[in-house]
Amino acid sequence: MSIATRPSKRAPDELRNVTLERAVARYAEGSCLVRFGETHVLCTASLEERAPPWLRGQGRGWVTAEYAMLPRATLERTRREVTSGKPSGRTQEIQRLIGRSLRAVVDLQAIGERQIVIDCDVLQADGGTRTAAITGAWVALHDCLAWMQARAMLSKKALKDHVAAVSCGIYQGMPVLDLDYAEDSTAETDANFVLTGSGGIIEVQGTAEGAPFSEDELLRLLTLARNGISQLVDLQKQAVAS
Amino acid sequence: MSIATRPSKRAPDELRNVTLERAVARYAEGSCLVRFGETHVLCTASLEERAPPWLRGQGRGWVTAEYAMLPRATLERTRREVTSGKPSGRTQEIQRLIGRSLRAVVDLQAIGERQIVIDCDVLQADGGTRTAAITGAWVALHDCLAWMQARAMLSKKALKDHVAAVSCGIYQGMPVLDLDYAEDSTAETDANFVLTGSGGIIEVQGTAEGAPFSEDELLRLLTLARNGISQLVDLQKQAVAS
Amino acid sequence: MSIATRPSKRAPDELRNVTLERAVARYAEGSCLVRFGETHVLCTASLEERAPPWLRGQGRGWVTAEYAMLPRATLERTRREVTSGKPSGRTQEIQRLIGRSLRAVVDLQAIGERQIVIDCDVLQADGGTRTAAITGAWVALHDCLAWMQARAMLSKKALKDHVAAVSCGIYQGMPVLDLDYAEDSTAETDANFVLTGSGGIIEVQGTAEGAPFSEDELLRLLTLARNGISQLVDLQKQAVAS
Amino acid sequence: MSIATRPSKRAPDELRNVTLERAVARYAEGSCLVRFGETHVLCTASLEERAPPWLRGQGRGWVTAEYAMLPRATLERTRREVTSGKPSGRTQEIQRLIGRSLRAVVDLQAIGERQIVIDCDVLQADGGTRTAAITGAWVALHDCLAWMQARAMLSKKALKDHVAAVSCGIYQGMPVLDLDYAEDSTAETDANFVLTGSGGIIEVQGTAEGAPFSEDELLRLLTLARNGISQLVDLQKQAVAS
Amino acid sequence: MSIATRPSKRAPDELRNVTLERAVARYAEGSCLVRFGETHVLCTASLEERAPPWLRGQGRGWVTAEYAMLPRATLERTRREVTSGKPSGRTQEIQRLIGRSLRAVVDLQAIGERQIVIDCDVLQADGGTRTAAITGAWVALHDCLAWMQARAMLSKKALKDHVAAVSCGIYQGMPVLDLDYAEDSTAETDANFVLTGSGGIIEVQGTAEGAPFSEDELLRLLTLARNGISQLVDLQKQAVAS
Amino acid sequence: MSIATRPSKRAPDELRNVTLERAVARYAEGSCLVRFGETHVLCTASLEERAPPWLRGQGRGWVTAEYAMLPRATLERTRREVTSGKPSGRTQEIQRLIGRSLRAVVDLQAIGERQIVIDCDVLQADGGTRTAAITGAWVALHDCLAWMQARAMLSKKALKDHVAAVSCGIYQGMPVLDLDYAEDSTAETDANFVLTGSGGIIEVQGTAEGAPFSEDELLRLLTLARNGISQLVDLQKQAVAS
Repeated sequence: MSIATRPSKRAPDELRNVTLERAVARYAEGSCLVRFGETHVLCTASLEERAPPWLRGQGRGWVTAEYAMLPRATLERTRREVTSGKPSGRTQEIQRLIGRSLRAVVDLQAIGERQIVIDCDVLQADGGTRTAAITGAWVALHDCLAWMQARAMLSKKALKDHVAAVSCGIYQGMPVLDLDYAEDSTAETDANFVLTGSGGIIEVQGTAEGAPFSEDELLRLLTLARNGISQLVDLQKQAVAS
Repeated sequence: MSIATRPSKRAPDELRNVTLERAVARYAEGSCLVRFGETHVLCTASLEERAPPWLRGQGRGWVTAEYAMLPRATLERTRREVTSGKPSGRTQEIQRLIGRSLRAVVDLQAIGERQIVIDCDVLQADGGTRTAAITGAWVALHDCLAWMQARAMLSKKALKDHVAAVSCGIYQGMPVLDLDYAEDSTAETDANFVLTGSGGIIEVQGTAEGAPFSEDELLRLLTLARNGISQLVDLQKQAVAS
Repeated sequence: MSIATRPSKRAPDELRNVTLERAVARYAEGSCLVRFGETHVLCTASLEERAPPWLRGQGRGWVTAEYAMLPRATLERTRREVTSGKPSGRTQEIQRLIGRSLRAVVDLQAIGERQIVIDCDVLQADGGTRTAAITGAWVALHDCLAWMQARAMLSKKALKDHVAAVSCGIYQGMPVLDLDYAEDSTAETDANFVLTGSGGIIEVQGTAEGAPFSEDELLRLLTLARNGISQLVDLQKQAVAS
Repeated sequence: MSIATRPSKRAPDELRNVTLERAVARYAEGSCLVRFGETHVLCTASLEERAPPWLRGQGRGWVTAEYAMLPRATLERTRREVTSGKPSGRTQEIQRLIGRSLRAVVDLQAIGERQIVIDCDVLQADGGTRTAAITGAWVALHDCLAWMQARAMLSKKALKDHVAAVSCGIYQGMPVLDLDYAEDSTAETDANFVLTGSGGIIEVQGTAEGAPFSEDELLRLLTLARNGISQLVDLQKQAVAS
Repeated sequence: MSIATRPSKRAPDELRNVTLERAVARYAEGSCLVRFGETHVLCTASLEERAPPWLRGQGRGWVTAEYAMLPRATLERTRREVTSGKPSGRTQEIQRLIGRSLRAVVDLQAIGERQIVIDCDVLQADGGTRTAAITGAWVALHDCLAWMQARAMLSKKALKDHVAAVSCGIYQGMPVLDLDYAEDSTAETDANFVLTGSGGIIEVQGTAEGAPFSEDELLRLLTLARNGISQLVDLQKQAVAS
Repeated sequence: MSIATRPSKRAPDELRNVTLERAVARYAEGSCLVRFGETHVLCTASLEERAPPWLRGQGRGWVTAEYAMLPRATLERTRREVTSGKPSGRTQEIQRLIGRSLRAVVDLQAIGERQIVIDCDVLQADGGTRTAAITGAWVALHDCLAWMQARAMLSKKALKDHVAAVSCGIYQGMPVLDLDYAEDSTAETDANFVLTGSGGIIEVQGTAEGAPFSEDELLRLLTLARNGISQLVDLQKQAVAS
């Protein structure tokens, strides 16, 4: 099989240009504008003094996430979800994934009976919005926890590790890293990986869009993801160091 | 590490007692009551003469799924979702998964501009309802397609392969097959696998509930799943042969 | 007038084959799968430790009911009500009727500040689902109260009498008992009767679908119902005796 | 048993003071402000040139009804139903009853593929709003049909008979006609009757609020209703004659 | 420019015939049926013993308003808002305006931790329903406060001034007072004014429907409004004096 | 009266620092990120090839607007409106205002049977979001119309004039231009003005938050607004010239 060319001319194992811009929201305890190429997501972390009702009295807190897209983040305008009165299934799936991913690296007892709400609003969408959101949300969460730390609100260290995410897929028979929309819309297999800074797997979601895929293909995608996420974690480290 | 004992005394690679009872719904074109131990799901396949609006005029059909639980399928009564006015995020996630899984083995052109709706209603829930649903839904779908075949409604063979699903997880450090509720609620890692009869992967969803998991653990879960699904496919074959 | 033949060949005063199967739901405090011929309804009784808010502090409890149909209980698939965001008028009418009927035979002070929720889910519908539901719900309620009795949760005897229900109608000029769908959809008059074991009337709902009906016809329907309900009460007695 | 006294001092078989005021809504094709004592309902009939979608092409029309109460029609202010986003079960039950009652006396083919919407808005509520609504709605409907007749829109006579309604009940052991709120809220049994001008029964709805009632009691209530409705029909005749 | 003739033949600065009928709702603490020509609005004031949650413990109360139209208040029947599940933007705008206008003349501390709900239900609509509603609502509010005063529920004088409202507009180039529907639907500019009895401005809302308007035109409309509102306040004084 | 100092130290007639950044949304036909100091609104214009249903066949198009705030645009996090299932009254009021304002300067026949949707999403809110939105939306609309012009989609010149908006208010007795949040939340009177480039008034909305205001005060606010809007129109001219 001859090697296909990616629409973006990137090498198969090449991330898009990724930037993480901190402190972009004046009022939020933590915030990050994350860009994976033309995918731009504004992530904010908001501290709320009350834990959700079902957690009260248990001495620990919660981290949750909400996700939305601006109507014209997309090539064609998308209807606002408020118009249909409820978040779509896709939106709910994504915000549950973001929340789970972040909670995996937070010590919920350290933050006490409080809640941190992560809002991920997609300003522009070119594929991979959920994985970009997780990667940027970690920075917003980090800064929110630092804000709390500075005010002595944490009983112990709350952030246990980095977490970052990337999508991979099989595009024209070739495993590739960090799908953009042109690839994502035609890929045979699409997989999202969420990993910690130390390389543990938080979440794997692989879906065959057309033909089933093999265990070998799954492993090749995981290897691509592991390398990509390692770079994303480095970028997070640089971002919070500055 | 000493070997833990499963609450059900099953061996780590042992399925629950699985039965697939066909033709249980008098009016449906296909139906199956699937039981994975104490998890019971009634699956029906309903043929609708119209494809969904967004597919009209494209010469192919659609397979979609809906999922719900009876209020007292669970240990504690669960509120009906109609009461809150919308399906929960969990429900939507599950019905999207069931639909994707079945579509992966159907030739949508063969069924023409029609829609098959798979309803999976959980009568009793003891863990693994979504994977039981997929496994039973395949039988209902098979019988619906046979019904269509008998009426010369298929332009060619529509069902390309079996599809079945099972959950695996790491319970007290031990990878185990087919989690029941007692295991599911305490497992460190929970993964759902959807495979075809020929062993291709349709969907992998692995989630760390507590500590991250490793690539090695993912592969051990996949191996368990592959063996379990192989047995489930055999049961499907027996069911539709009778 | 020559005597019409019922589609089912039943005599005018003949019930369908009725069965009451107890303890069909593993987790519910009481349950019953009731079958009136091809109409099958799964009834569960769930005990909740809290009375509804508007009743708090009054020293008595409540019995309420919810009703739904599985989408393919019917000849043609019916949309789930969660899709339109609210129970239909018909559903609400039926669940109010079931609740009123059961409360008429329960001493609400005996159960204390608790609530019993009766869920009636129609697995298969061939006419008369609401009357079958009431008849089966009584068994589920009976078993829930026995469960409470066994745990000394009742301050006194809570169940005052049996309650059962049946529909009657005028089909091709002939008063008949226990309409099935074929009769119900063409009957000129349709009436539902809810009676106690001692023969008192709890509810009468008679509706002219076409021409108005006379007092004499109403009385003939009531007589049919009285005899039918007497048989249903005998079946309830047998069921709870076993 | 000594004879109880009604709170209103009326005789057991005495209606409240009933008036039917026509042409009270400037823009409606027919309208009537009906008063049963302190219960006041504004009924309008609106002609719509299109039949409901499910009836198109069948050469006949439809009559439907909607019902609502102004928030302060009642002793205590009632929340608007728009606030909870949907009509209550009670509202839906009532509007279905009003619609069925009126359709029973209309030749739906005579009105062609059109719809008449009857709006019954309760300005003040002192019991018996649904039966007052039916009685007044007949007048609004009559005038709407006369309006259509005057414009040659009817293919034949459309109004087959009068229809009127009244509630009866057993109050302190005594069967009484036309319950007001003081009686309705404490009656043991409450029954609504809808009859035609020629005495045929359209609908009977009898409910035991406390103890069950007997066949004899049902018949006594029906006799009261028959006499009351006869007077209501006379008032309708006077109203439309003027 | 030659002077245009108003459809109603009124002089440019002439109000419609306005009447304010008090005590029209038997159960409300205050009520008023206000008529501006063929625009009729039923206003009731309902006292609730609890302030809204966000105001609790602050020692003051609240006045709020709700607004709705009967479906056949209008030339063509309007769908009930409960059918679409929520009040329209127009409805919300109007009820916020009515509430703000009334609160501007009430001492909220005088009424204590209570809420007065003003319901404005349009029985018939011929333009200017929101301004008629404000004018009539003041009377209902006045009577509710008098009812409270008579029961010693006010800590001091609660009603600080009159408030009334009127719409003005530029109709065929001519500034006119109190637009009816025929004028409103074709006016180039439409402005609503809410003034106090002492002439202070509570609210000005001027909108160019077609061409923009000038400062001079705005002032001419304000002068018309000031004179009209002065007459409306006189009518309020007469109404509450009787 | 001594002169109060504005919290921002601005002169009474001084705008905040205003910038209009074009072409900020990759996919939209027109877009503008408008900043009034710390109030930032992202405005996009989306061309849709179909006019709204109620306008079909009339040979003209439509311009409409939607408005929303990101949850953490504000000091405290605000719940997403999708959570409550509908846009709030405030949101609907604002989007209606933006739509009316823009339509006032567009020749709807020139754009044919199409619709332009203006989305105004507040990224950061420090008062005056609706007036900033109108000012920025004009630029997005301008660029969308230029895009259409370049594709020969306009039958004639579509944009008739500039439109811009500003809020003014009486802060500590002093009329001031362009309220920020610190002023807005305590101002006695708050007024929004929408004017065209040639100085015509499109909309005036003045509200007394506390004491009523006088005609003289209204005129002083209008004068401030006129000067401020003149500067905003100059900034629009510079933005679209570049």
